[in-house]
Parts: sequence; structure tokens; C-alpha cells
Amino acid sequence: MKIAVLGGDGFVGWPTVLHLSNLGHDVHIVDNLSRRWIDTELGVQSLTPMDSIQERCRIWREQTGKTLHFHLINIAEEYERLKGWLADNRPDAVIHFAEQRAAPYSMKTDRHKVYTVNNNTNATHNLLAALVETGIDAHLVHLGTMGVYGYSSVGAAIPEGYLDVEIENLEGEKKGLEILYPTKPGSVYHMTKSLDQILFQFYAQNDGLRITDLHQGIVWGTHTDQTRRHEQLINRFDYDGDYGTVLNRFLIQAAIGHPLTVHGTGGQTRAFIHIQDSVRCIELALKDAPKAGERVKIFNQMTETHRVRDLAELVSKMTGAEVAYLPNPRKEAAENDLIVKNDQFLALGLDPITLQEGLLDEVVEVARKYAYRVDRSRVPAVSAWTKEIGERVEKDPEGKRLKSVS
Amino acid sequence: MKIAVLGGDGFVGWPTVLHLSNLGHDVHIVDNLSRRWIDTELGVQSLTPMDSIQERCRIWREQTGKTLHFHLINIAEEYERLKGWLADNRPDAVIHFAEQRAAPYSMKTDRHKVYTVNNNTNATHNLLAALVETGIDAHLVHLGTMGVYGYSSVGAAIPEGYLDVEIENLEGEKKGLEILYPTKPGSVYHMTKSLDQILFQFYAQNDGLRITDLHQGIVWGTHTDQTRRHEQLINRFDYDGDYGTVLNRFLIQAAIGHPLTVHGTGGQTRAFIHIQDSVRCIELALKDAPKAGERVKIFNQMTETHRVRDLAELVSKMTGAEVAYLPNPRKEAAENDLIVKNDQFLALGLDPITLQEGLLDEVVEVARKYAYRVDRSRVPAVSAWTKEIGERVEKDPEGKRLKSVS
Ligand SMILES: NC(=O)c1ccc[n+]([C@@H]2O[C@H](COP(=O)([O-])OP(=O)(O)OC[C@H]3O[C@@H](n4cnc5c(N)ncnc54)[C@H](O)[C@@H]3O)[C@@H](O)[C@H]2O)c1
Ligand SMILES: NC(=O)c1ccc[n+]([C@@H]2O[C@H](COP(=O)([O-])OP(=O)(O)OC[C@H]3O[C@@H](n4cnc5c(N)ncnc54)[C@H](O)[C@@H]3O)[C@@H](O)[C@H]2O)c1
Repeated sequence: MKIAVLGGDGFVGWPTVLHLSNLGHDVHIVDNLSRRWIDTELGVQSLTPMDSIQERCRIWREQTGKTLHFHLINIAEEYERLKGWLADNRPDAVIHFAEQRAAPYSMKTDRHKVYTVNNNTNATHNLLAALVETGIDAHLVHLGTMGVYGYSSVGAAIPEGYLDVEIENLEGEKKGLEILYPTKPGSVYHMTKSLDQILFQFYAQNDGLRITDLHQGIVWGTHTDQTRRHEQLINRFDYDGDYGTVLNRFLIQAAIGHPLTVHGTGGQTRAFIHIQDSVRCIELALKDAPKAGERVKIFNQMTETHRVRDLAELVSKMTGAEVAYLPNPRKEAAENDLIVKNDQFLALGLDPITLQEGLLDEVVEVARKYAYRVDRSRVPAVSAWTKEIGERVEKDPEGKRLKSVS
Repeated sequence: MKIAVLGGDGFVGWPTVLHLSNLGHDVHIVDNLSRRWIDTELGVQSLTPMDSIQERCRIWREQTGKTLHFHLINIAEEYERLKGWLADNRPDAVIHFAEQRAAPYSMKTDRHKVYTVNNNTNATHNLLAALVETGIDAHLVHLGTMGVYGYSSVGAAIPEGYLDVEIENLEGEKKGLEILYPTKPGSVYHMTKSLDQILFQFYAQNDGLRITDLHQGIVWGTHTDQTRRHEQLINRFDYDGDYGTVLNRFLIQAAIGHPLTVHGTGGQTRAFIHIQDSVRCIELALKDAPKAGERVKIFNQMTETHRVRDLAELVSKMTGAEVAYLPNPRKEAAENDLIVKNDQFLALGLDPITLQEGLLDEVVEVARKYAYRVDRSRVPAVSAWTKEIGERVEKDPEGKRLKSVS
């Protein structure tokens, strides 16, 4: 298959590119490298020394004989170039990672809010409009997040995308209706994924586009079978307060002797998936395309759920690190339960890698190996969800530290 | 009150500006005049001879002694100017009409789809982000549409914005949950209003913005008490296939001896409101602001529902015009029922003007008076919802004509 990977230079995109190229697909990366520019803006860098995309592609070819193509296009701003590229290349499938993906970055300032909405909504909509216009019947696989649901206030299990409700009709009879599972996103970033869902619903219904939306949990780990093949194929590893995701951040904090920063009580339950499983899920989803005219397929792409404080305890036990409870810069419930259904992926044959399986050691190793590259001042999460929260957080930057909480 | 009217040069915006100024408010128009540019693009003009916004403001002042302020800002593209303007002017209320509002225009070509999503989503989101950033506690009143619901497939009454559903919690108990009434928009334009709802939900919840979303029916008529005061205060009247709305289009078709163009069976039921009621509803909504932290208030701003073919019959009876049944360029159900709840506006004291009340004659008069300005080639609706529909419509441009269907 000819596969376009939009956002193929990113943390999940790059290992996906290698995984699919390794399986023999003809892979084309489309990326505007905005994520590298944001590193520059924030004055941070990937923990792992990451080469240019051109150099990474060259190394992959040297190692495997397989060619990767790279195209520099801003899919949110350069509609005509995107359409021209699709018309010339006519991919069989398009995997769409090309969005600003950090909730804290999306809440930093008004400029960051405006950028995130503009970038993500136009990226997704341009792609949909261009697929219709070029008449390319590609399977579109998009990366979404379960975060759109706001971690369900009533404590129900997160179903795979849809909810059956009853509506009273004009004769007073109850009629069943299937709706998109209602969303209540908790950040501007999550909100854009909720907008994406509406875009997908419309284009599947009006134009028969074939779309799969993967509601992904928080990705942890860094290596996959392919990124391990050569030092210069290494994946990016974000540890900073904006892009670093919770588990990877704990591991790097432990490696540099920084306390593990838990926000609030740490009672938030989150869904997780290892990067290796993430790329496998994408492979599985690609094989299971909906037909034209069918509703959007929605999968929950995650393998386990944990409370944040339990993760901190786990990492503290492994490494001896302290745990610090800081005021929460986010506006969210202090504690929440979360049960997520992922039956569809299990049915497709996914055999999950769990936190217990030793891969955590590997990440600790990566964190230790590159700890010298860390800028400690970039570790704290500083983006506050509202001005009031920002002021509260500033008053108590150090929080309450506990030596090994377990 | 100091009131900012975004999109105050438009069909509903202009009479709203005059109505509020007449009530003694200090009214500021913010508009980028894009709608006038679209007239130029399409090679059409308002049926009524419409003056420049600057001239209209001058005449109003001459007639009433009241000053209107006009500011040329593109609120979708000029975030910093919008924010600066808000910070300097600190309005008590903001009425937001500033979106591309024609479904056929939004479906014309891929360029029009991309423009509509970009313009409408950024316009609304920029406004929300700027209100938070400037800390202005203005009541935001937005114009949405009931069209977001796709005219409810199960034939339920359209409630005022929300739906109570039951969700099974983790213990297997049914728990009540109030959700935004699920949407299934039928055009790119309607889709943008569905996106707007998610933006409002987020900013009300995260930042305590006070927002009222008016889901408006199709507006008919042209004059209000204020636009009647002077020939140069006249409101715009769109009759073309993109911006002309169904009832006003029938009236102008009758005036120029063009058959009344009904799409499909004409079995589509739509909600209507007269322009005079529309501006009164906005006045009522302004008085009934939600409190900070409350959910978005959603009203259905309409006064009656009719099937399209019944309207055609009514106009045919009044004027003797023929009715032509044409293939439908839209992708929609051939027939639908529609019952809409508007209890909230009735409770606030709205006393609706209905089609029976003689005002229809007035519109016929306007149509006859300015019929000489009509470009007949711009009357047909040509934007097709998909390429297949476009081909089908082209094969049968004349349709089936019936002399007085009743
Ligand atoms: N990392 C996670 O834990 C996680 C969890 C859930 C969902 N996701 C989703 O998966 C996708 C990929 O995440 P990631 O962690 O790899 O993010 P990332 O930021 O590392 O990668 C995104 C890539 O998209 C590119 N991009 C952004 N806007 C673009 C535009 N307008 N045009 C072209 N390219 C553009 C960036 O340059 C970057 O290379 C995102 O959509 C994200 O929301 C990620
Ligand atoms: N007319 C109807 O029947 C009807 C029905 C339901 C809802 N509505 C809604 O009411 C609102 C007003 O409708 P209308 O009929 O007056 O439309 P209109 O097109 O006549 O007026 C919209 C005005 O907004 C301005 N505008 C658009 N984008 C802008 C931007 N980025 N920055 C600044 N100004 C911008 C335009 O120049 C125009 O003057 C719209 O949001 C529409 O969706 C209208």
C-alpha cells in the first residue's frame, strides 16, 4: 500500500513510519516540522538526540534498503499544496497525526489557544475537503483522544465512540438513536479533537469518506523494534512541562533526582499505551477500514488505566525518588474513575504490553543515559488553565514533598 | 449598555444595530464587510439598493441624533486587533453575527468549504479567547441555527439545546446526564455552528464566560420599524441561489414571473421567523443573561414551521406564480417533520408575527418595487452537495412545472 503519514516526524508518527515501511508499504511523510519549531520556541529539546528528518530517512534507507519520502507541507495553511500532493500521489491510506497535541501548550496563553484551534481544525478539515475534491478513496486513520469525554463525570465505562439514547418522538413513543458519545473536553487541545469528530461525522455521511478515529490513551516508552536498529533512528522523548506525558516525565524526574511532580491528589485515572502497541494498533486499524457510507469507526487505543499517584508510587519504588504533591494547574476533578472498552482492538488480535513487563526498565535506562541533556528549569508544568489557578499555583510552587509514599 | 455587534453590516445585524440604538444603547459595529465582497465575487447584489455602512450610519445620525460607530476588523484573521479593540472599548454585551452564513455557498467548491470552516471557527474562537484574555465580563449572544440537528431523524420535538440521557455507571445503575442535544449537521455551514457549540461549552465551563446561543430559524421579511425610517436605511434582501432564503426567494421569483423553485418534493419542514421578531428576540435574550459558571443558554429563535411546498402554494395563491419541482441539490431527507420548542422566548414575552399577518404583502411590494434590479441568471440554486448530485441536477435543470399547485 502507498501510505501518507501526516505528522510523520513526530513522537508517534516516526515509529509508525518505520513500522509500516518495515512491513513493506510505500511510506510518504508529510510534515511542516512545526513540532521542532515549538522546541525552539520553548527552549527545550528531545531528551534523546534526534536527527533531522532528512538524515533519519537516509539512515533508514542505508539500514534497510527501503525509501522514505519526505514532503514539507503545512496542511493547515497550504490547502492547495496539500491537494496537489494528494492528486499527484493518490495514497491508499492516510494516517493523520498532524496536530498540535499538548494540552498544557494549548492553554499557555491566548496566542497558543488561537494557534491550536486554527492549526488543528484547519489541518483536519483541509485534509477532508482535499480527499473529496481529488476523489481519492483512501482510508483515513486519525489519532484522537479519550480526553474528549472529560473523563466521564458519571463514572461510566467509556464505550467505543457511540452511545444509544432514547428520544421521545412526536407520538410520545421512545425511539432508539445512536449518537456520538457526548464530549466535555477539558482543554483547548482536547476541544479540537472534539471538533474533529464532528468534521469526520459530516464527511463520512455527506461524501462517504472512510474514516477510523483512534481515541488514544497516553503513550509511554520510546523505543520500538525499528527505532532500536540504529542510534540515529531513535525516537523523540519529551520531558518538559508542556509536551512530556506523565509516565515519561516521572521517569526522567527520577533519573535527574527531581521529585516526581504529582498534581493535586494524583487521583486522576488515565489510560495508557506503550509506543510499540500504538504502532501495532495503527497497523491493525489500517486493515479494518469501514466501507463508504458507513459511520466513522471509533476505537479506544489503550491497554491499561492507572491513577497518577499509583504511577508515582511505582516509579518511586523502582528508583527511590521522592514524590511532590503540587497544586494542580488544570481545571479538573481531583479524583476520577475510568474504565475504557477496547474490545475492538483485542478482537483484532492486539496482545498488550503492560507496565509490569520490564519495558519500564528500558525507559529508566534511556532517561539515565541522556539525563545530562536535561534542562531542569523546563521540567515543571507551568501552563495554568485559568488566571486564578495560575495565581494559586505560583503561591505554592514547591508543594508538599513525601519520601517514598508507599 | 455599550453593545458590540459583530457582523453588524449584515441582513440580521443591521436591523439589530438600529433596534438597539433606538432603545438608547451605545452601539458599535465590527465587520470586515466580507459579505459585500462575496456579492462582488458572485456577481449579485442586494435586491434593495443598499448604501455603504458609513453612509447608513451617517443617515441614522441625521434622522435620530444617535451615533453608531463602525470598525473594520476581520475577527477571524486579526486576533490582535480584535483583542485590542475589546480592551479599549470594554462592551457590556457582544452580539456575534460575524460568520459566513449560507449553506449553498459553503458547499460551492472546496475553496468555499475551506473558507467557511476557517472563517467561522476562528471568528468564534478568537472572540472567546479575547474575552478571556481581556477579562471582559460581557454577555455574549451568538446566532446559531436549528439546522445543526439535521432536522432530527426520529421526528422528535427539537428541545431548547439540551437532552437528558441515561448512562449506565460502573455499578450497573442508570444515571441521568444532561448533554448538548446531539447534532448531525447537513452542510459545511451548519457543521460550523455545531463546532461553535463545543467552543461555547468549553469556555463557559473553563472560564465562566456568560453565553447565550440563539438557534435561529430562517429569517423572512426585510423591513423593521427602524429600517423603514429612511430609504437609505433599507435592509439588504438576498434573492440569489446562495444567500436568498426560501420564502424571500419565492416572493422575488413571483415578482419577476419566474416559477417558484421547489427542491425535491418540497416536503422539508423548516422553522421561520420574521426579521422584526428576530431583532426583538435579541433584545429579550440580552436581558436574560446567564450567570458566570452556568451552562450556555440555548434558545430556539423561531415562531412557526412550514413545509416548503406549502409556502410555495401560499405564494402561488397570492401571486398566481407557477411552481417548478426541481431535483434537490442538497443531500437530505425528502420529507421531514419538525416541531420546535420556543417556550423560553414566549415566556420572555415574545408575541410572534406570523405569515398570516399581512407582512407578506409588504415583502411582495418590496420585491415588485425593485424587480428591475434582479439578475435572473442568479436566481437558480446551483451549489450541489456532492459531485453525483451536481451531475443529476444538471441533467434536469428545468424540472417539472405546475401551474398553481393548490
Ligand atoms: N503522544 C501521546 O501521548 C498521544 C496521546 C493521544 C493522542 N495523541 C495524538 O497522536 C498524534 C501524534 O502525537 P505525537 O505525540 O506524535 O505528537 P507530535 O507533536 O510529536 O507530532 C505531531 C507532528 O505533526 C506535525 N504537524 C503539526 N501540525 C502540522 C501541520 N499543520 N502540517 C503538517 N504537520 C504538522 C508536527 O510537526 C509533528 O511532527 C496527535 O494528533 C496527538 O493528538 C498522542
Ligand atoms: N439569515 C438567516 O435566515 C439566518 C438564519 C439562522 C441563523 N442566522 C445567523 O445569523 C447570523 C447573521 O446572519 P445574516 O443573515 O445577517 O448574515 P450576513 O451574511 O448578512 O451577515 C454576516 C455579517 O458578518 C460579517 N462577517 C463575516 N465574517 C466576518 C469576519 N471574519 N469578521 C468580521 N465580520 C465578518 C459579514 O461581512 C456580514 O456583514 C449568522 O451567523 C447566521 O448564521 C441567519
